[in-house]
Amino acid sequence: KEQLDSGVVLFLGNTESPVNYPANPYPFRQDSTFLYFWGLDIANAAALIDLDENLELMFLPDPGPDEIIWSGPGPTPDSLAASSGARPAGSFEQLHSLMDRAMRQNRRVHFLPQYRPENILRIASLLNISWEQINEKASLDLIRTVVSLRSIKDVQEVQEIEKALEITRAMHVRAMDLSQPGLTERDLVGAMFAIASSMGAPNMAFPPILTTQGQILHNPHHGNELQSGDLVINDSGAEAPSHYAADITRTFPVSGRFSQQQREIYAIVLRAVEKGIEAVRPGLAYRDIHFDVSRELVEGLSSLGLMKGDTESAVSAGAHALFFPCGLGHMLGLDAHDMEDLGEAHVGYTQDIQRSPQFGANRLRLAKELHPGYVLTVEPGLYFNPLLIDRWEAQGKCREFIDYRALDRYRQFGGVRIEEDVLVEEEGSRVLGKPLATSISDVEELTSERRERP
Amino acid sequence: KEQLDSGVVLFLGNTESPVNYPANPYPFRQDSTFLYFWGLDIANAAALIDLDENLELMFLPDPGPDEIIWSGPGPTPDSLAASSGARPAGSFEQLHSLMDRAMRQNRRVHFLPQYRPENILRIASLLNISWEQINEKASLDLIRTVVSLRSIKDVQEVQEIEKALEITRAMHVRAMDLSQPGLTERDLVGAMFAIASSMGAPNMAFPPILTTQGQILHNPHHGNELQSGDLVINDSGAEAPSHYAADITRTFPVSGRFSQQQREIYAIVLRAVEKGIEAVRPGLAYRDIHFDVSRELVEGLSSLGLMKGDTESAVSAGAHALFFPCGLGHMLGLDAHDMEDLGEAHVGYTQDIQRSPQFGANRLRLAKELHPGYVLTVEPGLYFNPLLIDRWEAQGKCREFIDYRALDRYRQFGGVRIEEDVLVEEEGSRVLGKPLATSISDVEELTSERRERP
Repeated sequence: KEQLDSGVVLFLGNTESPVNYPANPYPFRQDSTFLYFWGLDIANAAALIDLDENLELMFLPDPGPDEIIWSGPGPTPDSLAASSGARPAGSFEQLHSLMDRAMRQNRRVHFLPQYRPENILRIASLLNISWEQINEKASLDLIRTVVSLRSIKDVQEVQEIEKALEITRAMHVRAMDLSQPGLTERDLVGAMFAIASSMGAPNMAFPPILTTQGQILHNPHHGNELQSGDLVINDSGAEAPSHYAADITRTFPVSGRFSQQQREIYAIVLRAVEKGIEAVRPGLAYRDIHFDVSRELVEGLSSLGLMKGDTESAVSAGAHALFFPCGLGHMLGLDAHDMEDLGEAHVGYTQDIQRSPQFGANRLRLAKELHPGYVLTVEPGLYFNPLLIDRWEAQGKCREFIDYRALDRYRQFGGVRIEEDVLVEEEGSRVLGKPLATSISDVEELTSERRERP
Repeated sequence: KEQLDSGVVLFLGNTESPVNYPANPYPFRQDSTFLYFWGLDIANAAALIDLDENLELMFLPDPGPDEIIWSGPGPTPDSLAASSGARPAGSFEQLHSLMDRAMRQNRRVHFLPQYRPENILRIASLLNISWEQINEKASLDLIRTVVSLRSIKDVQEVQEIEKALEITRAMHVRAMDLSQPGLTERDLVGAMFAIASSMGAPNMAFPPILTTQGQILHNPHHGNELQSGDLVINDSGAEAPSHYAADITRTFPVSGRFSQQQREIYAIVLRAVEKGIEAVRPGLAYRDIHFDVSRELVEGLSSLGLMKGDTESAVSAGAHALFFPCGLGHMLGLDAHDMEDLGEAHVGYTQDIQRSPQFGANRLRLAKELHPGYVLTVEPGLYFNPLLIDRWEAQGKCREFIDYRALDRYRQFGGVRIEEDVLVEEEGSRVLGKPLATSISDVEELTSERRERP
């Protein structure tokens, strides 16, 4: 309220999202900003702040007489509203007439950009404007206010992220423990779901990436059989019951032992993630850390003869992006990519730090200066994508920095990624959650442990 | 094409559905009718039949140059179109100009009712009509045509449902096997997800209902601890990789032994489901079977002294609906409630057989005459919902048929449901899938087996 002038601020909670017919919805997920301000984890809610009257109103669906038969009795709308800190103000119809009045009085209505078409249509109907215009009419002041508040995590929020990390850690340990040739990726994914469900967190913060084809960054498939000699990238995170997210990545050998080649690439990525974490502190731009880590990766690849020439020039030319065609990390909070629905430019960039057009760096989600209370991921990787290598080589791209011949031995390598969740503190930073194996020997111990049991 | 006159028929596949920001979608689920006619399981596809030109066209998204980095190389749009049997006709922009032309020529455009707001907006924009009008402008001829085709399952479709049932059977066996006091509902649900994922079917046909509070019909919560003496209702079904659904229910005692009271209620429901299955045959209206089974339930409850008076009159008055406030079953196919997105009235009812206004029977999803090739669920249950009992008793409802005093001993009973998936054959019917314990002794064996192991 302090950051906004006048008018009314409209917050829409999420509705149910149908899978293949209306009565079969996906698992309900509340809008994160709605959760942040109002804490109500139910469908079809809406809230309003009247800045001029200093009033908060909550609009909730009427459960109807059949609720006790189909979904069981829940708290009353009044008690829900009370727990949100707002005044109960009826249902969506009441909101409709209130908005009608606000429009007649020509009051400013602040609302956020919408990612669910249900809510685009609800706002279109509430404000009587065309649905095509909703997102361009979203309030920039409100976006900036929400980003400024949600970006700084308080102690309770950090605790919630660490709860998500505790579940996530158990998922990762289970996947490593279970891994053996002959199983499929799906076996490991299913086991992770089971353990998360048992721990009270059946919903993932994002679809797990668990793949032996790690060179594909967001590989959504889980159909491969695990074979001796394969590396598995496991990039997955649970959502705590409060809906705060975790997001970590480990890379481990199916057979419990890294090969010499895997060991060399893994060691480079491990040094890179350590360097990245060490660099995180207030006042530094995350874009600079991204490029620091990129230089570290280039140094490592040069030591293996895969890259050559001056490191600084190679990174300036974007040569590292053949192996690291993405950004170093992103904000983390109630969303895995925190607040990305409000616009990545508002979350990760400022007027002064604009997005790079360069391949790779153009996918960097967080570039701006860091502040205490930010939680972000540090997730460098090295990926050997034969299709991308062929494309670059055919174009003769960055020939002065890349030894394409030496790359022949790595075409089937796959990829390595290591990711941690890091809190920016007053001085420096802290890796969140209990430690989970990253060193070569610790990872080998976790993955081979099982085979030593009776 | 034979059933429709002229014009063009527009089929929209589903888009990705965002959870909390656009880059974080729910697991993709293709529209069932799109799958049925075109077989393409990818997002953002659309197809068109030109009835007058006898032409099928497929519109597919351009994967873009970054696909090989983020999601891996897939089949080309041309090969996808070829596998669908349609001619590749470009992307959504090409569809747009084709539809513009069709509109200028005043041609009839058939489309189905839409349940995803993304597709409501896509059609609104393609046909330049207001989104509020889309569903009222859906083609009744097309709805009837699609329902007539999809209602009759051929041999391959039945096989796919039986594949879903094989996975579902494993899920149910696992839940019964695992069940013991001290675990939570979530532990069993997680284990079911894990086994389905291992078997290549990570997506359920609907959110599993697994609850000790079975009196709540669609109880979505899994937070209860299993306690000795509790009954668990497990109403869950996998979706085969082809997306055909299964949907079965078993009720079992946490502790491996039914109590005397549980045994008596269970036996009534078991007789009811057997009677329902036996009655399924071509030519009979499913509404009549619903009422047959309702009478069976009333007979059973009367034998226990919970109901009284004339059975026929009790069912006519709707007295049974205190214990069975829903319908006997629904169509099953690519959807758990097959084709429900097209309108339950078109799938389950006809001009001659209209929906009953009576409490309970008004929730019957399938009422019309059965034909060979229909697959449907038979799922009677008995539920003791204290809130509903109190409401009825306070209203003095059906006092001549219900002994409210005798019900006191059943207030904490919960519920029992047994559900099978049944194919209507030329003569009679067949329960689909391999048998899974329904008798009291078989269920007790499955649930107590585990405790006899070393």
